[in-house]
Amino acid sequence: MNLPNALAYSHTLLGECVGPGDTVVDATVGNGHDTVFLANQVGPTGHVIGFDVQDAALNATQTQLTLTGLSPQVDLHATGHEHVGDYLDDIVSIAGAIFNLGYLPGGDKSVVTQAATTLTAVKTLLQHLRRGGRLILVVYSGHPGGMDERNAVVDFCQKLPQKTYQVLQYGFINQIHHPPFLLAIERR
Amino acid sequence: MNLPNALAYSHTLLGECVGPGDTVVDATVGNGHDTVFLANQVGPTGHVIGFDVQDAALNATQTQLTLTGLSPQVDLHATGHEHVGDYLDDIVSIAGAIFNLGYLPGGDKSVVTQAATTLTAVKTLLQHLRRGGRLILVVYSGHPGGMDERNAVVDFCQKLPQKTYQVLQYGFINQIHHPPFLLAIERR
Repeated sequence: MNLPNALAYSHTLLGECVGPGDTVVDATVGNGHDTVFLANQVGPTGHVIGFDVQDAALNATQTQLTLTGLSPQVDLHATGHEHVGDYLDDIVSIAGAIFNLGYLPGGDKSVVTQAATTLTAVKTLLQHLRRGGRLILVVYSGHPGGMDERNAVVDFCQKLPQKTYQVLQYGFINQIHHPPFLLAIERR
Repeated sequence: MNLPNALAYSHTLLGECVGPGDTVVDATVGNGHDTVFLANQVGPTGHVIGFDVQDAALNATQTQLTLTGLSPQVDLHATGHEHVGDYLDDIVSIAGAIFNLGYLPGGDKSVVTQAATTLTAVKTLLQHLRRGGRLILVVYSGHPGGMDERNAVVDFCQKLPQKTYQVLQYGFINQIHHPPFLLAIERR
């Protein structure tokens, strides 16, 4: 067994807090990898709400969901995750949320997540995160602008009140390139 | 389930790479918490080699081991971990090692681990670490001198060649005091 990378560990952490019937958010649908994982976790009685600004990514993910029979419990929205509040009932509580920051691998590398919209979405989601729920960010910083977003997100997380949240940072520190690292915000 | 702290996570990571018959090193025996855990992991056919400079800590741990029947597979040495090489056969390979840096809780707070001797021990142990084996450091930095040792250890880890090792950093980033964080060096 090898130490899992940030992407693999994000699923371990979500698997521990998300179960059948839960509502969760995939803030960056992309290739649908997380969406499918979450749809399996919440099952037919649960609800996955997904966001992406790239139609091609959403269409490919929708096809995957239809083929695997997971479509009924998933709603995909072709808009930025900063609008997540428009799609969450005031009283809904979520068990988990995931962000894969940066660009979509294999997609248009000029389309990247941005600090301001990422933080707007994170703040909205934290208002809905239930106790024991986890909001996960997989943070890439090697692309242009990536370090600015990384710093803004880390700074925001460091200031979250420790009475209400604990924030874990998990990542490898001896790699030459900028491997992604993980931030997990857990509501106490 | 809550996100485990660095101490709890150190046992998870060691539990995944240490099994019956293995040889392991507890570089900072202290209250014996890790020694007992490792002695259970390696079982009667395994071998735990422990080090501490404080006789009171070693005596209390030895009593614990005797009472729990774990004594046969453990050798405790009343010397600093920088001498670990004197107690390892040249050809022995180890599955795991653990360091709890800083001072012994409840003990003499003026007796603390030091960057130079810690790094001497780490370098020696890495020469014996088998593939898939893990050397874990639980790093405290809130005490006098703690930040110097922290920086020296992190700097050393960041420079380890990524072809041979991967180094994980795991810790909470929104706590006011200096909670310990974990470094795990895994040999590929």
